[in-house]
Amino acid sequence: MLKTLAYNARRLATLARDPSFAKVEASDLRVFESICGSNYVKTSDIDNYKTDWTKAFKGDPPCVLLPSSTEEVSAILAHCARRRIAVVPQAGNTGLVGGSIPLHDEIVLSVKRINKHFEFDETSGILSCDAGMILELLDNRLAPYGYMMPFDLGAKGSCMIGGNVATSAGGIRLLRYGSLHAHLLGLTAVLPTEEGTIVELGSAHRKDNTSLHTPHLFLGSEGQLGVITRVTMSAVPKPASVQSAMLGVDTFESCCKVLRMAKRHLSEILSSFEFLDREASEVLDEALGLKPVLQSNPRFTILVETSGSNAAHDSEKMEKFLDDCISSGSASDGVQAQSIEEASAMWRLRESAPLAVAADGFVYKNDVSLPLKHFYRLTEEIRTRCSSLAKRIVTYGHLGDGNSHLNITAKGPSQELYDRLYPFLYEWVNAHGGSISAEHGIGQLKLPYASLGKSPMERDLVRRVKAVFDPKSILNPYKSF
Amino acid sequence: MLKTLAYNARRLATLARDPSFAKVEASDLRVFESICGSNYVKTSDIDNYKTDWTKAFKGDPPCVLLPSSTEEVSAILAHCARRRIAVVPQAGNTGLVGGSIPLHDEIVLSVKRINKHFEFDETSGILSCDAGMILELLDNRLAPYGYMMPFDLGAKGSCMIGGNVATSAGGIRLLRYGSLHAHLLGLTAVLPTEEGTIVELGSAHRKDNTSLHTPHLFLGSEGQLGVITRVTMSAVPKPASVQSAMLGVDTFESCCKVLRMAKRHLSEILSSFEFLDREASEVLDEALGLKPVLQSNPRFTILVETSGSNAAHDSEKMEKFLDDCISSGSASDGVQAQSIEEASAMWRLRESAPLAVAADGFVYKNDVSLPLKHFYRLTEEIRTRCSSLAKRIVTYGHLGDGNSHLNITAKGPSQELYDRLYPFLYEWVNAHGGSISAEHGIGQLKLPYASLGKSPMERDLVRRVKAVFDPKSILNPYKSF
Repeated sequence: MLKTLAYNARRLATLARDPSFAKVEASDLRVFESICGSNYVKTSDIDNYKTDWTKAFKGDPPCVLLPSSTEEVSAILAHCARRRIAVVPQAGNTGLVGGSIPLHDEIVLSVKRINKHFEFDETSGILSCDAGMILELLDNRLAPYGYMMPFDLGAKGSCMIGGNVATSAGGIRLLRYGSLHAHLLGLTAVLPTEEGTIVELGSAHRKDNTSLHTPHLFLGSEGQLGVITRVTMSAVPKPASVQSAMLGVDTFESCCKVLRMAKRHLSEILSSFEFLDREASEVLDEALGLKPVLQSNPRFTILVETSGSNAAHDSEKMEKFLDDCISSGSASDGVQAQSIEEASAMWRLRESAPLAVAADGFVYKNDVSLPLKHFYRLTEEIRTRCSSLAKRIVTYGHLGDGNSHLNITAKGPSQELYDRLYPFLYEWVNAHGGSISAEHGIGQLKLPYASLGKSPMERDLVRRVKAVFDPKSILNPYKSF
Repeated sequence: MLKTLAYNARRLATLARDPSFAKVEASDLRVFESICGSNYVKTSDIDNYKTDWTKAFKGDPPCVLLPSSTEEVSAILAHCARRRIAVVPQAGNTGLVGGSIPLHDEIVLSVKRINKHFEFDETSGILSCDAGMILELLDNRLAPYGYMMPFDLGAKGSCMIGGNVATSAGGIRLLRYGSLHAHLLGLTAVLPTEEGTIVELGSAHRKDNTSLHTPHLFLGSEGQLGVITRVTMSAVPKPASVQSAMLGVDTFESCCKVLRMAKRHLSEILSSFEFLDREASEVLDEALGLKPVLQSNPRFTILVETSGSNAAHDSEKMEKFLDDCISSGSASDGVQAQSIEEASAMWRLRESAPLAVAADGFVYKNDVSLPLKHFYRLTEEIRTRCSSLAKRIVTYGHLGDGNSHLNITAKGPSQELYDRLYPFLYEWVNAHGGSISAEHGIGQLKLPYASLGKSPMERDLVRRVKAVFDPKSILNPYKSF
């Protein structure tokens, strides 16, 4: 994975530094020190801030600023706007597309020290917290109330809520709880103006029709509109019962039928509907030695999870669903997990799929949304086009969300394979009504393709909205807007 | 109700016509006729378009335009922008605050004829439809697939999806399915520019992180950014089982306790948590002859509804919830509806509350969101302040959403009572972290108070976002942005 990212990253090397941005001078550092304190203006030992965790993207910031409050962020941005110093906001730095890494010498503004405020109303279920709070910590703080965060990510131990909002993080509970749009209610942000404008947007109410719903504009804004310093959102009751099952399915059409049956039978408790093709099962076995749970070697494997409040009810619903899938012939095989161990074995297969393809060789990874009728056609199309050059073509993903992770592995990097894949793959996705980035965003990785499928009118509108928030164009420059 | 609205509406009479708007001339009408066809440029018989259904707000539009397509809307707005003719977009015209009614001689652009397109993917549950489609019709079209719209309103027989999106309609399923933010994925809108810019925003995917999530900016925009002509959103599986129960509760604190217990016991199936105080029960009996379901004359009455996929499971959960409420002493009385008739009797009480206060006399209505700790304190505060002048002070509402409908009735209109109530009530709500408009919006009714609780920075940001979409300031002028 790392190598592919680096491969794409190289394509951006041609994007020259904008000479109209000021270079940070000693006098700027003194101003920053007077704002944050000298311990929190770092000029050395900043590798973790200038490199993303995939190591594919690396910037050259002259300093990293670690303010501890909204007011400090405001003073920093006011100074940067007046001096026209470019700034990249950063939270947990766990993104996969280089969005929180400078391209050149933009300074890094980390919100990790803005992490004190936590307020939760256990009757309304509404949470207000600082942007630098780590997702897992928030989950832990909510647990004693019987609540949890409405989304979950692999990076939960280090990603921060401010970054989750800025990237509209999806994750593995989206099918049940919806996207962050379903939960975000308000936020505090600092705009990169000469005044370092602090805006409080939205409120702490589930219903508030008194103004434009501007907080939602920050979801997916990738740090290009303002620096989020506080978030208000709804949390959800923690499920008392989580159950898993695996099904073997012979055709992709039947996978869609099983999804429709899951929605009918499991309705309010359906929380995951994950997908692995036979190639994914094979690479799990061959590269990692992980044997399949289903013995029938099915063409497709579906992993279904429910999250509910009553184990007996949930289990009964799941049994009925499985019975119906088998008796109607929609699925050829099905197993309900009878213990946490059995459920873990199922999830291990799904969660290890990225590791398995990485172990298989050099891998070209993708994260796309597609209408379900085209979901697996993309894989077949790429197989026809690339199998002579590829080692393996493997698809897994969040079928319930229409989100495919198509992986092409090869013995090593190949310009020929790369050119066979791109931009063909993105253009095919676009031509079939899909999205070239489902959950990871644009960042630096997909910047060359950010306009695909967008009209000039949409691009223009987005640029002008960006200019309202960032009139001096200093916030996360060179990126998609 | 009608009289109160008219009362507030009079306060706006001082807002003079902006002389920089062009007056519609015969040549403009000819242009509109060439775009829509002469049958669809109406200059007479337009009462239903220039008056809202409460009859409180009445504009004086020289014509009503009824385009049948996005392209016709584009041609109309391009002409209006070039000539600087002011335009009020209108869908079902069922709003309660005069938002879709001209203040002076703005023309009315109705989307009701843009109502042909309907496309539904029963595997993904994603719907795409024209803005002029009526909510109830959409529900009917989804029913054969086992799906329904994720929100429901009293006006469902005449309100249209384009208007629902523009006003961020809340309604009675919000607790279960979330606000429209949870469901909106994309839309087509026409901007009031000299080009009549058509923008396709968002997509038809549950996950799409390729641009700013601009569709969400239209939720609650009240027709001030652009004219929505098509909407893409998710629908939800129709519940197989809907159950109701009523509880009597002695203190407001216990109401909150019962809400917390409902979230724990009913979790994923909890769909309504409605509230009536004793004064509401009394006025239902005295004004409409509707006897209470609970015989114990409790201080507060809670109506709980579940929507789930399995009647036996849902009923068992409800029984356990009621048992726990009674045995813990949180509720003093509780009845589970055993039939549709019994459930209807419960809902009749809640749904007739607005009619009961209207029958009781002249009524000052309110629609506010409040943190739950202050929810009933507002009523008590108003009681202390106004009971000498009021006939009755009655509160009902969506307690599960923090949305209070506080009603003050009097024998007739009273300037003294009005001045005792306003702006005190709005200022109190604002000072206690509430919102002066939970679900109805600002429109004309609350325009004098639209800035309450908003910072100058927020107001300025909203105005500048408005200018990006509507550079000539012709769309729904005189309103909140």
